[in-house]
Amino acid sequence: MTDLHRTIEDFLFDYAECLDDRRYQDWPDFFDPIECRYEVLSRENADLGLPAPIMSCYSHGMLVDRVTMLVKKTLTYRPMYLRHQITNLRVRPGSAATITARANLTVLQSDVEGVSSLYMVGRYEDEILITAGQPKLRRKSVILDSFGVDTMLAVPL
Amino acid sequence: MTDLHRTIEDFLFDYAECLDDRRYQDWPDFFDPIECRYEVLSRENADLGLPAPIMSCYSHGMLVDRVTMLVKKTLTYRPMYLRHQITNLRVRPGSAATITARANLTVLQSDVEGVSSLYMVGRYEDEILITAGQPKLRRKSVILDSFGVDTMLAVPL
Amino acid sequence: MTDLHRTIEDFLFDYAECLDDRRYQDWPDFFDPIECRYEVLSRENADLGLPAPIMSCYSHGMLVDRVTMLVKKTLTYRPMYLRHQITNLRVRPGSAATITARANLTVLQSDVEGVSSLYMVGRYEDEILITAGQPKLRRKSVILDSFGVDTMLAVPL
Repeated sequence: MTDLHRTIEDFLFDYAECLDDRRYQDWPDFFDPIECRYEVLSRENADLGLPAPIMSCYSHGMLVDRVTMLVKKTLTYRPMYLRHQITNLRVRPGSAATITARANLTVLQSDVEGVSSLYMVGRYEDEILITAGQPKLRRKSVILDSFGVDTMLAVPL
Repeated sequence: MTDLHRTIEDFLFDYAECLDDRRYQDWPDFFDPIECRYEVLSRENADLGLPAPIMSCYSHGMLVDRVTMLVKKTLTYRPMYLRHQITNLRVRPGSAATITARANLTVLQSDVEGVSSLYMVGRYEDEILITAGQPKLRRKSVILDSFGVDTMLAVPL
Repeated sequence: MTDLHRTIEDFLFDYAECLDDRRYQDWPDFFDPIECRYEVLSRENADLGLPAPIMSCYSHGMLVDRVTMLVKKTLTYRPMYLRHQITNLRVRPGSAATITARANLTVLQSDVEGVSSLYMVGRYEDEILITAGQPKLRRKSVILDSFGVDTMLAVPL
């Protein structure tokens, strides 16, 4: 692995592309199959050190369940295009074998009439494990500056 | 060229700066003089594999024509400042000697009263040729999530 | 210093995180203690080569003064979360020992009700000095595309 920062960057951009392209069935593959956690927190709680997430999946099976309804289109939600803009990436050594990645995130939505607007603003705080050169998410925390958007939890962020 | 990713990144950021600074006369120079294509597509069409662009220039001369009216200020359009935010860049080997670059794009506009708003959201899908260390666009496809903005095609994206 | 671009990028992202986290007391530390300047200009003036800033601090003591009221919470301003998105970074050798960094900047704000909106759009033009491996700002010029937001100068950008 010659450039860890580039490897992590590429991994997160692939993650974003998966979601932007609505390939939700591929989303769990970005997580470590043995041990993983996906959680969405409000910034207010995160800043106060309050760990209660708005939602969380704490096993790989829960991630698969999470997107099954999206893949099968049994969940009804307003159709829209999303686009992730990941910036300000910092990569740091984490505890044990993991790497900590922190980045700012804006997601823009565009509706079927082609009108674009701000969908969410926040940041990622990720713990990433690299096994045989392949990064996998041990934990992804999505910390929301914006909330109150009732559709925000319909799809993974 | 020790770092291809950095070279491509720099090239795209120079491209964006050229447009943000409204140096439209320099815009065709980013394209390969022998063979090039600039096209704007809707995401809906691109996702369905429908190749019909909203607009396209398929020769270097057409690119020059495209901006002549902007340079000479014979085209009347609402004055505004634009700012490109290019993120999530992925660089991949393309066919033959070309490189494929894909990135997310948000353009913000600010009017003469200083009010900023979202101008367009979409992505770039570029084919880039590097000749004697200098990247040139063989093809730039701008794929719009947002559309219906009637001024959107007045200037290159 | 193996990768200057990465060093500068990291430095600017740390700068943004300091502001996003509202650690205003740490903000002056990003500037060179001997000689430094922080200024906010309108794009219109900057493009015309008119040097008059909207506001400026031209010594380290002025920077400290600038944030003292924020740290002590004696300045009353509408509480909100800010998030900096720094993109399109270009790093170039500057005059003498300095490095020139130019980047595009969007700041998103989220209010206490969790509603997000565009706070400001513009660019950074920085002169950075690296002493003993540590970057410090010799000058930071924040050039605003957007203005007229009356709260925009309440906090550093």
